[in-house]
Amino acid sequence: MSSSYGENIRLSIFGQSHAPAVGMTLEGIPAGLPLDMAALEAFLLRRAPGRNDWSTARREADKPEFLCGLKDGVTCGAPITAIIRNTDQRSGDYEKLKTVPRPGHADYTAQVKFGGRQDAAGGGHFSGRLTAPLCIAGAICLQLLGRAGIRVISRIAAIGGVEDKGELLASTAEKAFPTVDDGRGREMAEKIAQAKAAGDSLGGIVECRVLGLPAGLGDPMFGGMENRIAAVVFGIPAVKGIEFGAGFAAAALPGSKMNDPFLWEDGAVRTEGNKAGGILGGITDGMPLCFRAAIKPTPSIALPQRSVDLASGQAAELRVPGRHDPCIVPRAVPCVEAAAAIAVADALLGRRKDALD
Amino acid sequence: MSSSYGENIRLSIFGQSHAPAVGMTLEGIPAGLPLDMAALEAFLLRRAPGRNDWSTARREADKPEFLCGLKDGVTCGAPITAIIRNTDQRSGDYEKLKTVPRPGHADYTAQVKFGGRQDAAGGGHFSGRLTAPLCIAGAICLQLLGRAGIRVISRIAAIGGVEDKGELLASTAEKAFPTVDDGRGREMAEKIAQAKAAGDSLGGIVECRVLGLPAGLGDPMFGGMENRIAAVVFGIPAVKGIEFGAGFAAAALPGSKMNDPFLWEDGAVRTEGNKAGGILGGITDGMPLCFRAAIKPTPSIALPQRSVDLASGQAAELRVPGRHDPCIVPRAVPCVEAAAAIAVADALLGRRKDALD
Amino acid sequence: MSSSYGENIRLSIFGQSHAPAVGMTLEGIPAGLPLDMAALEAFLLRRAPGRNDWSTARREADKPEFLCGLKDGVTCGAPITAIIRNTDQRSGDYEKLKTVPRPGHADYTAQVKFGGRQDAAGGGHFSGRLTAPLCIAGAICLQLLGRAGIRVISRIAAIGGVEDKGELLASTAEKAFPTVDDGRGREMAEKIAQAKAAGDSLGGIVECRVLGLPAGLGDPMFGGMENRIAAVVFGIPAVKGIEFGAGFAAAALPGSKMNDPFLWEDGAVRTEGNKAGGILGGITDGMPLCFRAAIKPTPSIALPQRSVDLASGQAAELRVPGRHDPCIVPRAVPCVEAAAAIAVADALLGRRKDALD
Amino acid sequence: MSSSYGENIRLSIFGQSHAPAVGMTLEGIPAGLPLDMAALEAFLLRRAPGRNDWSTARREADKPEFLCGLKDGVTCGAPITAIIRNTDQRSGDYEKLKTVPRPGHADYTAQVKFGGRQDAAGGGHFSGRLTAPLCIAGAICLQLLGRAGIRVISRIAAIGGVEDKGELLASTAEKAFPTVDDGRGREMAEKIAQAKAAGDSLGGIVECRVLGLPAGLGDPMFGGMENRIAAVVFGIPAVKGIEFGAGFAAAALPGSKMNDPFLWEDGAVRTEGNKAGGILGGITDGMPLCFRAAIKPTPSIALPQRSVDLASGQAAELRVPGRHDPCIVPRAVPCVEAAAAIAVADALLGRRKDALD
Repeated sequence: MSSSYGENIRLSIFGQSHAPAVGMTLEGIPAGLPLDMAALEAFLLRRAPGRNDWSTARREADKPEFLCGLKDGVTCGAPITAIIRNTDQRSGDYEKLKTVPRPGHADYTAQVKFGGRQDAAGGGHFSGRLTAPLCIAGAICLQLLGRAGIRVISRIAAIGGVEDKGELLASTAEKAFPTVDDGRGREMAEKIAQAKAAGDSLGGIVECRVLGLPAGLGDPMFGGMENRIAAVVFGIPAVKGIEFGAGFAAAALPGSKMNDPFLWEDGAVRTEGNKAGGILGGITDGMPLCFRAAIKPTPSIALPQRSVDLASGQAAELRVPGRHDPCIVPRAVPCVEAAAAIAVADALLGRRKDALD
Repeated sequence: MSSSYGENIRLSIFGQSHAPAVGMTLEGIPAGLPLDMAALEAFLLRRAPGRNDWSTARREADKPEFLCGLKDGVTCGAPITAIIRNTDQRSGDYEKLKTVPRPGHADYTAQVKFGGRQDAAGGGHFSGRLTAPLCIAGAICLQLLGRAGIRVISRIAAIGGVEDKGELLASTAEKAFPTVDDGRGREMAEKIAQAKAAGDSLGGIVECRVLGLPAGLGDPMFGGMENRIAAVVFGIPAVKGIEFGAGFAAAALPGSKMNDPFLWEDGAVRTEGNKAGGILGGITDGMPLCFRAAIKPTPSIALPQRSVDLASGQAAELRVPGRHDPCIVPRAVPCVEAAAAIAVADALLGRRKDALD
Repeated sequence: MSSSYGENIRLSIFGQSHAPAVGMTLEGIPAGLPLDMAALEAFLLRRAPGRNDWSTARREADKPEFLCGLKDGVTCGAPITAIIRNTDQRSGDYEKLKTVPRPGHADYTAQVKFGGRQDAAGGGHFSGRLTAPLCIAGAICLQLLGRAGIRVISRIAAIGGVEDKGELLASTAEKAFPTVDDGRGREMAEKIAQAKAAGDSLGGIVECRVLGLPAGLGDPMFGGMENRIAAVVFGIPAVKGIEFGAGFAAAALPGSKMNDPFLWEDGAVRTEGNKAGGILGGITDGMPLCFRAAIKPTPSIALPQRSVDLASGQAAELRVPGRHDPCIVPRAVPCVEAAAAIAVADALLGRRKDALD
Repeated sequence: MSSSYGENIRLSIFGQSHAPAVGMTLEGIPAGLPLDMAALEAFLLRRAPGRNDWSTARREADKPEFLCGLKDGVTCGAPITAIIRNTDQRSGDYEKLKTVPRPGHADYTAQVKFGGRQDAAGGGHFSGRLTAPLCIAGAICLQLLGRAGIRVISRIAAIGGVEDKGELLASTAEKAFPTVDDGRGREMAEKIAQAKAAGDSLGGIVECRVLGLPAGLGDPMFGGMENRIAAVVFGIPAVKGIEFGAGFAAAALPGSKMNDPFLWEDGAVRTEGNKAGGILGGITDGMPLCFRAAIKPTPSIALPQRSVDLASGQAAELRVPGRHDPCIVPRAVPCVEAAAAIAVADALLGRRKDALD
């Protein structure tokens, strides 16, 4: 199903941008996990709009209401459902999108798929707003992973062609604008400001690492960690590519440079370098799991764009109404972390089935 | 499950490199499809080893035996199972891999995951040989798609850093060495010969296009065409990245350049350019679906490599035994096509559930 | 997953008896179905408690709030989520159940499964209250089926050993106490009154028929209509058996009596008699699909019962606190219909994938 | 998918009665299980035809060939595939069934579902022969369960209206004709001989118990043990009903008689009596899991039957060709055990995901 994910946990995401609520149900989280709500809300805040210059002016509390799955703040084994009310809606802004679809958006494809019955307002079920419940699920999974010593960190690796420098460390991930090189970070922010002024938008790259993973997670073939993570990450609107370890650069390397030699370190098997991105044969090797996701520029821009009028069969010019981020990459960072956490939590629970007795 | 895929069809792949057989079961293909066995075998031959300078000397007929699912050569609605016997096995070659894992291979991770009980010979269930049944399934799906006017084409976009030039067209895909620019193709072949001579290996990029797709295939969120295709393509060993449309390059574009304007063409909605790769909001827009997959260099190389001896806890040097391709990219081309065909066929059948009556 | 069902639709049920809400998400219902809310609420009312002598005094509006999945009252293709707030909770009543489990209830097994972390109040996620969201999903599916001319009817076939007489027809199903023979119905009601007075409870049998089904629904083996319907019906707490057509009586018949002869009727293939219950080889044959579900007596009774004190390791006597139905069979009727509708709707959408083109 | 089952293991069954082979793939069995092939083949022999008076004369070795999933006779973590060649086929016998469907068989429904493209010979994918691979999977699961001290036993509870007496114990299950009361067993055998002489057939009831189960297996709602077991057992052709514990008899009991009181026994919680059949709220309570399956009489009988000619639109008389069991109940016994073992093994592996750390 389109809005469900998971083999050992089961995540179901629901809602439309301008429906009464968006939300998620997460099944399969073991009973007994005390949810740290402050941590969860802090995580959601990283995704929330309206916090600074580069995000939309639409302000939302994004405070989830947990409907079930908890008993005195601790998971009780039943499915966990949390919702976020949609309070700040201006549906009128979106009236025209059913007949004149926005380039780069799902307006047209939703129209075809649902025969014109889709809820077009705000992008409906295709809205980036659906990443809010994704982040709720991710925050829960992060807390589950945390008990196993697993941590997910990430940075903005590039925006609008400006690339960050240096290696992603845990300290980077804690910054408000998570780049290793703050100078590059400022360049990116400057680029965003320029794009905003020009009525345009920018994309970028998010780099993510999962630290503290045991070796042995994942499965062969379609159950590989790459398959699993890609299956969630591409659920974030705007992701157009994903690469693990050396990724596309691996295509230009000889085997003698790509293969990470094995070595012993403190009695454990490690690799020298990590071009594999912590995954061999789809299964974690105990090194950090590293991947990068390409985020396209926000399709909603103020600049006039050429579209078509589906009703009249004529060409049409469009200026996208509403308030939109000139660059969603900063807000995509926690979404990518959430996606990684969900996929890894699913694999972690699945690992338990491997032992014979 | 790790070796199963699909929502509307269900593919299950089984086998180990040196077990009696590898094979696949494909459930959900409608009854009444006459299988063109000659076309199927020709497709498998594109993946088969031992056909030229850049592939392993291991020779196998790769001729599938269909055990069920057909009646007089036509699908009968029951699950289709086909197997390929493994005839040319030299298990002795692989004795040492359980204690001294090959860098870049699944030897070590399989050892951890399966507690040393894995079938290590030839890579076992992790072997590239498992792409043979993937190609059987792909060939069947291609024939199903063919009836709907859908075609999958691809080319070698790069090998060892040499990039092809020009645009992928159907005519390219028919070449023995499928590059648009034959000069670049010869350069690639030359690079492979050099790597082979050096005891090294090369990776590359496969570009794939699905032509003739109707608009409206795929689903929101986790059911997007990107999610679906990535979930199969990463099942091909050695794939380390995937990108759709402009992909990673999209990260550096402004929205005004990334958004493909809509226009009318012969009474149908099309886009000018195709940076979206034929997918908006996870759903096909009627343009060619375009993606690229990064293939890492074959990890098995003749050059000595550093590894560890899991039994003794010592460092160890390894020269990988057996016969191996210096570059699997040419053989990966049909595998990528197969993966795309499987994912698209699944989505195509699923599309039928969208209509209300 | 435990609380999810479906192959072509995906139902996810969530909530605990005394959590803020119970609810359901239903994915895969095609866009364009106008939901008749009055009909939906009338259906829910048939399940609602507190309406008469034989049901619990707990009064609840059971009025669902639809959070998403609709646009102007019509399905829009996005997942449909509806919740029912739990307003009338008296958690204090259930304090003791974690240490002294109620016989016949899930108190003990939930304790073991969830390591004591379950939400025991009111049965938590195991509560019969979870059939309210099941009925929401069922009501939606019934409306989907209605468009295809498919109707689900049922009756109380037995309560406390009193069996109804005559054949179930559509007119029966519309009665407030749906028995064919009203005299038998009164006997049943009398029996319930006696059980209530005695502090005891009664079970019964619900018979259900799905009318208007086309031939060809369902799949071989594990996808048979029996498998599909059983998989949902056993999701209703208290169901301990299910039989299709002649069911257990078939075990005593010779083949010559069990086999329904085929005949032509108005140009269509029908059977004389319907001992198969409308299913051959797991697939509908165009006759009414008939099944019966055995409902055990409500385990919550006022009479003292022997249990154990899990804390002290001692025997304990228990009088179940709270308000409970002496017989849930009348309220189980719409639940069984809902279960049938869900399974049939799933199969109906799946049928579309069978055609080749 | 129709021919696949499982959440934590994944069973896929393939084949048609007269295709080259039938077989199964079983994924998710942990690595390291030494398969006792002699035990597995002995189990299959219990299902094999041609062994005595009451089964078909078709003789088949039913000896499975394992294609993969084992290394030196021990599971290696990869999917296990085993096939059985179909050697003794007489397709000519079945020519007529596509136009004149056999009453009580899937001939007609398969014709509708697959648009006449089904493999009708011998029942195709609907044949009872498909229970052979089911038994292979069951035998593997039984060995997995055996390591956990779990055992599956069963008996013939009734044939042709003759009911066995006494309680099912492990010793019963070892008999060639597994009834507690041998006199009743002889009566049943006599009944079968009479039915055979008359060209007729008989059905019956199989009772099954799973011993040694820990408390806590299974999940709420659709993941209950009843749902899980029913989902597999109805995959056995001819099963028309299933009941757990007191089953349909529970419908006539008051709660005070149905509820099994809890008590302490050797420091463990047990119940007095087992009307719940070892399942409360879908989850095992540590008592034997008990269920009964109703098997309809073999639809293939020598007596003339009324059918229709689908080609001419006329009534037709049919005498079923081929060799058929007058009573499949004895051969169904291991099939029911296999089904139970598969469902329980799946739940057992799933149980591991419940713990928090």
